[in-house]
Amino acid sequence: MSIRVGIVGYGNLGRGVEAAIAQNRDMELVAVFSRRDPASVRIVSSNVKVDSVDNLDNYVSSIDVLILCGGSATDLPEQTKQYAKQFNVVDSFDTHANIPQHFAEVNASAKAAGKVAVISVGWDPGMFSLNRLYAEAILPMGETYTFWGKGVSQGHSDAIRRINGVRDAKQYTVPVESALEAVRSGQNPLLTTRQKHTRVCFVVAEEGADTAVIEKEIVTMPNYFADYDTTVHFISQEQLQREHGGIPHGGFVIRSGKTGPQSEHNHVIEYRLKLDSNPEFTACVLVACARAANRLSKEGVSGCKTIFDIAPSYLSAATQEELIKNLL
Amino acid sequence: MSIRVGIVGYGNLGRGVEAAIAQNRDMELVAVFSRRDPASVRIVSSNVKVDSVDNLDNYVSSIDVLILCGGSATDLPEQTKQYAKQFNVVDSFDTHANIPQHFAEVNASAKAAGKVAVISVGWDPGMFSLNRLYAEAILPMGETYTFWGKGVSQGHSDAIRRINGVRDAKQYTVPVESALEAVRSGQNPLLTTRQKHTRVCFVVAEEGADTAVIEKEIVTMPNYFADYDTTVHFISQEQLQREHGGIPHGGFVIRSGKTGPQSEHNHVIEYRLKLDSNPEFTACVLVACARAANRLSKEGVSGCKTIFDIAPSYLSAATQEELIKNLL
Repeated sequence: MSIRVGIVGYGNLGRGVEAAIAQNRDMELVAVFSRRDPASVRIVSSNVKVDSVDNLDNYVSSIDVLILCGGSATDLPEQTKQYAKQFNVVDSFDTHANIPQHFAEVNASAKAAGKVAVISVGWDPGMFSLNRLYAEAILPMGETYTFWGKGVSQGHSDAIRRINGVRDAKQYTVPVESALEAVRSGQNPLLTTRQKHTRVCFVVAEEGADTAVIEKEIVTMPNYFADYDTTVHFISQEQLQREHGGIPHGGFVIRSGKTGPQSEHNHVIEYRLKLDSNPEFTACVLVACARAANRLSKEGVSGCKTIFDIAPSYLSAATQEELIKNLL
Repeated sequence: MSIRVGIVGYGNLGRGVEAAIAQNRDMELVAVFSRRDPASVRIVSSNVKVDSVDNLDNYVSSIDVLILCGGSATDLPEQTKQYAKQFNVVDSFDTHANIPQHFAEVNASAKAAGKVAVISVGWDPGMFSLNRLYAEAILPMGETYTFWGKGVSQGHSDAIRRINGVRDAKQYTVPVESALEAVRSGQNPLLTTRQKHTRVCFVVAEEGADTAVIEKEIVTMPNYFADYDTTVHFISQEQLQREHGGIPHGGFVIRSGKTGPQSEHNHVIEYRLKLDSNPEFTACVLVACARAANRLSKEGVSGCKTIFDIAPSYLSAATQEELIKNLL
């Protein structure tokens, strides 16, 4: 029998989950839930219902896992703990400092309801976290480095758009190649923020705006740009749409560590993602974790889990025999 | 309280495990067991006992996990199932075709004894297997590629050494850079054996041996070399020792897959290992899995497990709070 999935929230991430479910033959999309008027929400799957989040109660017996596709700022801190009272849930909560609180609240809800909630999955947090954990467990004497990009940072793009005279903008985070090489060489370099990443901005200015003023405001912006080498390109709206319309991202987790009686041998573990679509890849991780949530729930497990707590085989649709034969 | 570990077998792998245990503060090496006369086995740790495998019975209550460091050809098929009757065990059994049978036999022993046995861990099988599983679970529409090297293949080096007129030899497996690039680009190329790896051999010939004959025998050897582009260099024993004395290895697991309603987006997941010492890195994975075996056993779990069956956090010495704070 298929795993029956519901999607809550239909932005880029929700659309990505819809597409990912279609690629997994053991999964079935039951409905997409929105806070908007369902009649106004057009989804890709022609045979799937769109309903209001207010009607979720009606789906308790027909949905195995709800995948929550809201944002980490305001949606998920409320939704995950709420929906975990009735459903197994999966979210991509990524406000790192607040994960312990989110975990505690969701855990309380899910435990009380006998449901499984998998939080903070995606690629970072998510696959990058996993790779940090495995690499540090294997090589306890070493250093771990995370590099992001080349990819679009939504937060930094938004920050530029808030500047007076800016009509639109896209910001790319770019890892510094020489820093990557130094890390890969096993030197375990100490790297400042500026040495690890550069920031490249494509900005559409309002007509008559002073681009020199905008550029200065960008490159000196505290937290977002002041600590980085930042390049600003002013381009037309058309060019922005044509050349920078995608949402690519990715990055690197690299751990370099020593082994041997005299720590004489060096080892480098590198995990790299190169993603054409950040939300679609995140969606794929959410869907694999939905499979795990369903299986854990069927085994009688309850409470909040992270990707650290889930045996890898639970993410796969393959049987143990297939996994051993084809992948071990 | 420390996890009390015993090592069975004191070759390169056993020495690697000894060094790895010293890097993990939650672990303690109780004894090294050998089939040789214990008096003839000199180990690095001055305060640790060397004993005969025949005396293992005496350690049932003082050892939490036995790490089995024998070979896959003849040692582990006998040892793992045997020692799992008394101890939690971890092995690096890597004869791929025989893993299902090994699993079944070890599982029967371990289940009957209420012990945990973790088999076939290391980097391939092991970390590479894990990365194949995660990548395929996340991107079901795609292709997975495994490349090995640059590194020393013990089996191929041995095959050369068996040729008449060869005194010593080292064989490196080298991934073809253009094949790697084609895979990374997301083209999902069909690659023949010859297109993926080359083989580079450093051979010390006996005095008076016909090197042309040796070279021909190497490059035409079925299974080992005939399907590859192989280069043979004849060098002196001194040069072999000086320049090729190490046991480096590593490789790449790359999965490239499509997402989106029209499969319009491409994603590349790449995991790379660059290892100065193949046995020491394998040893590090064994030790992390010994931690997991101990924890599973304390929870009342029994039977045979692979790396696929173990929640990642079980490999780490850190608490859940630390993992969430520092690595998620």
